[in-house]
Amino acid sequence: MSSDSRARLHTLRPQLLRQYDALAAQSLQLDLTRGKPSAAQLDLSNAILQLPADGFIADDIDTRNYGGLDGLPSVKKLFAEILEVDTAQVLIGGNSSLAMMHDTLARACLFGVPDGARPWHTVAARKFICPAPGYDRHFHLAQHLGFELLAVDILADGPDMVAVEKLAAADASVKGIWCVPKYSNPDGVCYSDEVVRRLAEMRTAAADFRILWDNAYAEHHLTDHRPALANIAEYCARAGNANRVIQFASTSKMAHPGSGVAAMAASDANIADAKKHIAARTIGPDKVNQLRILKLFGDLNGLRMHMKKQAATLKPKFDLCQEILARDLGESNIAEWSQPRGGYFISLNVADETAARAIELAANIGVKLTPAGATYPYGRDPRNRNIRLAPTFPAMDDLRRAMQALTLCVRLAASE
Amino acid sequence: MSSDSRARLHTLRPQLLRQYDALAAQSLQLDLTRGKPSAAQLDLSNAILQLPADGFIADDIDTRNYGGLDGLPSVKKLFAEILEVDTAQVLIGGNSSLAMMHDTLARACLFGVPDGARPWHTVAARKFICPAPGYDRHFHLAQHLGFELLAVDILADGPDMVAVEKLAAADASVKGIWCVPKYSNPDGVCYSDEVVRRLAEMRTAAADFRILWDNAYAEHHLTDHRPALANIAEYCARAGNANRVIQFASTSKMAHPGSGVAAMAASDANIADAKKHIAARTIGPDKVNQLRILKLFGDLNGLRMHMKKQAATLKPKFDLCQEILARDLGESNIAEWSQPRGGYFISLNVADETAARAIELAANIGVKLTPAGATYPYGRDPRNRNIRLAPTFPAMDDLRRAMQALTLCVRLAASE
Repeated sequence: MSSDSRARLHTLRPQLLRQYDALAAQSLQLDLTRGKPSAAQLDLSNAILQLPADGFIADDIDTRNYGGLDGLPSVKKLFAEILEVDTAQVLIGGNSSLAMMHDTLARACLFGVPDGARPWHTVAARKFICPAPGYDRHFHLAQHLGFELLAVDILADGPDMVAVEKLAAADASVKGIWCVPKYSNPDGVCYSDEVVRRLAEMRTAAADFRILWDNAYAEHHLTDHRPALANIAEYCARAGNANRVIQFASTSKMAHPGSGVAAMAASDANIADAKKHIAARTIGPDKVNQLRILKLFGDLNGLRMHMKKQAATLKPKFDLCQEILARDLGESNIAEWSQPRGGYFISLNVADETAARAIELAANIGVKLTPAGATYPYGRDPRNRNIRLAPTFPAMDDLRRAMQALTLCVRLAASE
Repeated sequence: MSSDSRARLHTLRPQLLRQYDALAAQSLQLDLTRGKPSAAQLDLSNAILQLPADGFIADDIDTRNYGGLDGLPSVKKLFAEILEVDTAQVLIGGNSSLAMMHDTLARACLFGVPDGARPWHTVAARKFICPAPGYDRHFHLAQHLGFELLAVDILADGPDMVAVEKLAAADASVKGIWCVPKYSNPDGVCYSDEVVRRLAEMRTAAADFRILWDNAYAEHHLTDHRPALANIAEYCARAGNANRVIQFASTSKMAHPGSGVAAMAASDANIADAKKHIAARTIGPDKVNQLRILKLFGDLNGLRMHMKKQAATLKPKFDLCQEILARDLGESNIAEWSQPRGGYFISLNVADETAARAIELAANIGVKLTPAGATYPYGRDPRNRNIRLAPTFPAMDDLRRAMQALTLCVRLAASE
């Protein structure tokens, strides 16, 4: 923050405090914390609640009965198209891609992975690279499974590859990296070809290094612009590292989050390894629900039509946030924020060392924000400046009031 | 087998061989392997395919959205009634109770459990007690997670407790026991009060010993007789071993197996421990599907009415098996079999050392049976005599032909 900005804010402080007291009197109850769809957005997918209306057979399989460890062929095909891989490389899971990521790492800890000499639990100082700001649940789950979290910066085109390459090459106990390659959570960054290529080709000290490629927002565009994402699986295969990447996707933010279908995709060796272990765990995931998703979308085109309708409900919310951020913080020079063309979040960087205070001020007047630091490993934002905004859940009026309260608290915190 | 029986079978052998050749000419394609419901049985639950018809709110929760780590309160209550525990002791899972058992053991391996000093993966020679004959997937999953399997006999009232107590007391690396306490798979045994009490009270060398209590057939009666099952959770608590037991149940064999709801129940400490780990894995299981189950059954009474209808479709199949077994094997004195009043299986013990041969003979004429030894740890039936019959899937005509082929093959194998 410049001394000019600081001086101006200081002058404004009495006025900001009056506005804050006025808001406090309104007993707001607003929530910008999690990337939850709104009820109106969920309504777009309500047809699924009456599915399957016309029978329970899919791909000649009685979806009601046991079986189908890797999912219905047609659903595998749909996810193969989303992730641009072969159908044979896809495994369908339950309702949570996070659970598939967890289980992938848990299996690596218990049993090891192809190319690896031993289970990862035997590597006491196992580490995972965490581009930050990033998804708090990624970081927490790796930490929970005993990984030390290594933060690297997210730049405009993906993780800081100089830092990633250095960490991956230096130490065989560095076992992998989290990636949200399209509309990253929370920055909305799309990985460049160059970044994807370097991730696929880089030298790793660990022969069993894994990229957990959470393509959570593959089809979640807010505009007609569809960013190209290089094919990580092909890049890895071409570099002789076919087993390096494991991709994930789900319908959680396409239809109903609590009752969607998740999938993973990887090399033949990785899929065979995963299936061997999963076969000891379950007879198979819920095929009737896979059929519901299939009936709701039809095919990839139908899915994309559906996502356009969804974008039409989301775009005004993102626009409103941008408008209020620009109006209230645009001239003060105390904040920067992302202008994503897809995904679920806006990433707001306020004046250094003031994010936690701004969030506290907002909480005190009934506006819940993602906890300070949540987007960083161990919840520690080194500059205490990042706030993740999730505009999808509140209705427009609530969102307006929440954003106004937020920008006020950001200025107030900076003025202290 | 008596020498009388042997002599008589030897005399009959040419006739048996003629019958076998006649069956071989029929190109049968019959399957008695797995406890899958038939399509007709699944039809009884088809109403669920159009649910929820009247809204998606349950317990004031929008089931479509994220959240609900431990399940809908009303569904927890339903499982609490089935398992006779407090609602607070229940955690709802996805579509597979097997997956919940797997994850319970996998978490124990990765993190340890309450009362335990360290993760079980650090116990290189960890062991699990396996009452046998038993459920092959139980045994395989424990083996897969690195446990040595210790077989003990199943008697008429449950596992041989003298053997169980000796194993549990002898060695702190013996970490638990599998139990299917009602209509055990495959013997149909219901555990006596005495067995339940001794399991709860026995001295275990491991402070963190666990009983995995798979009450898969809690409501699966074939007759109006409802066997009483002592409350293992209460017995454990009274004995000061509240954390010893973890119970499981599911709707897999009540409604549609592939798309049911599973649950576990345990002490406060066990549930808190499980939730801590599960929270790192997922935001929560599929609540819309929980609502479907709730709407299908209504409450425990509705569930029991439904199970009566289901029993009406299953009883004739079990009766037919008993009839053919009695007719073809009753006088020859070469076989014994269970006469279960619930559950999904009939356990057939043929002449020692002839089960594998009988199964092979059946396979050669197109009748698939559960592989020899499958009901024993490591697939090794010490007397090579047990065959698990699953009469639920085939239609009556197919079942008749399959059973006739089976009894022929049993006699033929014994005559060799």
